[in-house]
Amino acid sequence: MPLSELQKIIDSALFYKQTNSLPDYEGKILTLLFANPSLRTLLSFESGMKKMRGSVNTLQLAGSWQFEYKNGAVMNGGTQEHIKEAAQVISRYSDVIGLRNSQLITTTQTHNEAFEWDYLKKDEALTQLAHYATKPIINMESNMYHPCQSLADMMTIQDELGEVKKKKYVLTWVPHVKALPLATPHSQFLTPSIFGMDVTLVAPDGFPLDEDVIKLAEEKSSESGGSITFANNQREALKGADVVVAKSWASLDFFGDWDAENKHRNRFSDWMIDEEKMKSTNEAIFLHCLPLRRNVEVSDAVLDSSYSKIIDEAENRMWAQMSLISYLLNKSNENLTR
Amino acid sequence: MPLSELQKIIDSALFYKQTNSLPDYEGKILTLLFANPSLRTLLSFESGMKKMRGSVNTLQLAGSWQFEYKNGAVMNGGTQEHIKEAAQVISRYSDVIGLRNSQLITTTQTHNEAFEWDYLKKDEALTQLAHYATKPIINMESNMYHPCQSLADMMTIQDELGEVKKKKYVLTWVPHVKALPLATPHSQFLTPSIFGMDVTLVAPDGFPLDEDVIKLAEEKSSESGGSITFANNQREALKGADVVVAKSWASLDFFGDWDAENKHRNRFSDWMIDEEKMKSTNEAIFLHCLPLRRNVEVSDAVLDSSYSKIIDEAENRMWAQMSLISYLLNKSNENLTR
Amino acid sequence: MPLSELQKIIDSALFYKQTNSLPDYEGKILTLLFANPSLRTLLSFESGMKKMRGSVNTLQLAGSWQFEYKNGAVMNGGTQEHIKEAAQVISRYSDVIGLRNSQLITTTQTHNEAFEWDYLKKDEALTQLAHYATKPIINMESNMYHPCQSLADMMTIQDELGEVKKKKYVLTWVPHVKALPLATPHSQFLTPSIFGMDVTLVAPDGFPLDEDVIKLAEEKSSESGGSITFANNQREALKGADVVVAKSWASLDFFGDWDAENKHRNRFSDWMIDEEKMKSTNEAIFLHCLPLRRNVEVSDAVLDSSYSKIIDEAENRMWAQMSLISYLLNKSNENLTR
Repeated sequence: MPLSELQKIIDSALFYKQTNSLPDYEGKILTLLFANPSLRTLLSFESGMKKMRGSVNTLQLAGSWQFEYKNGAVMNGGTQEHIKEAAQVISRYSDVIGLRNSQLITTTQTHNEAFEWDYLKKDEALTQLAHYATKPIINMESNMYHPCQSLADMMTIQDELGEVKKKKYVLTWVPHVKALPLATPHSQFLTPSIFGMDVTLVAPDGFPLDEDVIKLAEEKSSESGGSITFANNQREALKGADVVVAKSWASLDFFGDWDAENKHRNRFSDWMIDEEKMKSTNEAIFLHCLPLRRNVEVSDAVLDSSYSKIIDEAENRMWAQMSLISYLLNKSNENLTR
Repeated sequence: MPLSELQKIIDSALFYKQTNSLPDYEGKILTLLFANPSLRTLLSFESGMKKMRGSVNTLQLAGSWQFEYKNGAVMNGGTQEHIKEAAQVISRYSDVIGLRNSQLITTTQTHNEAFEWDYLKKDEALTQLAHYATKPIINMESNMYHPCQSLADMMTIQDELGEVKKKKYVLTWVPHVKALPLATPHSQFLTPSIFGMDVTLVAPDGFPLDEDVIKLAEEKSSESGGSITFANNQREALKGADVVVAKSWASLDFFGDWDAENKHRNRFSDWMIDEEKMKSTNEAIFLHCLPLRRNVEVSDAVLDSSYSKIIDEAENRMWAQMSLISYLLNKSNENLTR
Repeated sequence: MPLSELQKIIDSALFYKQTNSLPDYEGKILTLLFANPSLRTLLSFESGMKKMRGSVNTLQLAGSWQFEYKNGAVMNGGTQEHIKEAAQVISRYSDVIGLRNSQLITTTQTHNEAFEWDYLKKDEALTQLAHYATKPIINMESNMYHPCQSLADMMTIQDELGEVKKKKYVLTWVPHVKALPLATPHSQFLTPSIFGMDVTLVAPDGFPLDEDVIKLAEEKSSESGGSITFANNQREALKGADVVVAKSWASLDFFGDWDAENKHRNRFSDWMIDEEKMKSTNEAIFLHCLPLRRNVEVSDAVLDSSYSKIIDEAENRMWAQMSLISYLLNKSNENLTR
């Protein structure tokens, strides 16, 4: 989605939040499909749509339904329904459709299943749903992107800082006990680039983002007059930051070999964000998408400080998504997939 | 339910769909009880009730609740609550109640559990719920019937063909990798008989429908001036058809002995519906209840043709059920159990 | 909550039920968090809120989310999110929040896990949620209390008996195949004491209620001019009762040693309530919170009698909770935790 449209969505979201003057979507139906557990995403979409007097259907796909994505497949295996039928049928029952399908999220300590990243990054479920559906699709987190998160982040940043162009935005890797998905950091890297911020990505060696995301962000950044810097010295990178976004993600260099990934990741437990590190910033606001491991990713003192905006950021998920739904209901042939 | 009432429900459903002029059920509550996973049934009921400004409660019973059905039972075993209490209590919280309880549906490849068909066909859960509840009950698929499906089918047929009396309706068995329930084919056999169609049931040897369903359909067919023909030559049966309904179901002759059933069923993989077979029909429309195994049950070419009405048929689940709910809310002592 | 406020809630609940004249909470959002399966609680809250035109979000926590409750914890273990963030975030998406978190309820025959009662009775999840949330919290059953149940009971008693002060209320232990939680009997003991009833608790040796609950009930009883009697002869205790409330619960004396608990509990199968025992009461009404094991806890004849008010009692859950929600929406800094 181009910058001008994203900015419109954020402007409306801020207007809804400030005035509580909301559009009326009585009779409109938002269908949410979840292949993964969710707290914030589920509640923020449900509450947002209901505040606008719309209705929400929520379907947990986990364990109950396997879609086929291949064209021409002879479906004599484990898949029960082709996405072609499912997408069209769900479209008939809905006005807008959300899908969460992140094949990296697990509820266990470590990931055991080895997937090929080159396959996962295609986001087959989302792509095919968007292809066959006749109603707008919202990506509620795929393998590659989590655009609703970075939209809420940008809304929060604009609410706090006003004009964001050329402001210094630092996305820093932080430690975690698990190998986490890349969707959120991808979106948190791409979106500020679209908005012309000076983006610094700082992470230990072995924690690259996907190359296609980097290429796209670089394109967008040069269009918008922003900049992109890659760093691996966290203290240096934080200097002068206006916004600090902390996020953990799995090492793509060890992707699939989770024991090695775990060992490599555990070398960087000193990347936790604490008050002392925040001191070198330009009185930056602090963001994190949540959920969050206190005193592993970020210290209590930072989280409980006045510059931490994590609760507002979570609330803004709701307002940004309300505005997005409104946008899509008025342009029924668009999607937000990244 | 008599033909005249069923026709009224279909007439209203078509009117709702064409005009989008809907009754207002604000404050009315539809409670859906699911003992099995569901996509179409869940979404079509949720969206339909919400379009009429009513509310929906959805309860997944699977794994969490076991009802007792026997009168006088000393409940010192695995059942946690008698249907007598449950039915009355749910009635106090609801205006109309739907139950899906199909003990044949599994999510695995093959069925392992052996039930006795003579027991299953009693539909104890549905029957007892309808007996003790003080609000109307909708069968959202039991062991024996799936009346909402065949109501949507009939709505689709009337929408496409107009007058249906004496039109040739062919219900053909098709291959599948699993032993599927009989509820849907039972309803898809009974309902067109009520409406006076010339019904042909074609299936390989060993795939009878239940004898009570056949008896009832024959009664209804002779009342309505239709006819019923049993066949086992698929190509012959399809000749001159106005409507082709494809459905797979388990062999009652091998019921419970699932290895033998599987072996028998696999002998008929050439019963898949393809374009060549459709050519001998009278430019028939094609229906399937979904979900569907492409290129196992039906070929891609048939499904993607202009005469395939499977997506409309799925959409019509919603309109037909809206009309059914409206009917039942106005006649609070009736049910739709078959 | 003081007696005067509880009485107001019951008065409104009776008024709602009798007149169907309801407050309008369109745009208000009730979020329900369930760590345990539920039928009555789920449906009664959902239907109640929707009848008042409000919206409901329902989240099943089981198996998907583990909150951290300790301040200063280094979250490198199994917990995924601190209650501090979760409570604040859910508050931003909600107007009132319900939590069911009973760590004693299991769906299996007997309990295997040994918890320490001294830890469980702290109700950490509920207490911490109430501490950090910025919206009112409703306890939908914790380890210690189930106040919505005893509120519905008191509404039912007042509806049947009018003035309740000094009326004889007997809470009797009954047999069960499982070791059940103490939350419901605790509330069913405390609430009538607050309302000044003459409360008799009758149970076999080895089935005490928690000492803190007893102390609190004694305080409340003396304030309200009621009385509390402890008994272990069921026939004697029932004499002259105006209200009989039957409930099973686990033996605190054998808490954690579930094999011994089971053996001890099974000695008292003759504590089932039957018609003959009810004869010595003062034509008492009969209550049970449900679900209920027929002919184990209570005989069919009692349950199916005209003095059994169990279905009204279940219905009154809905009306009492509607009134409670209304009360809390008007006093946004209060909770109902016990």
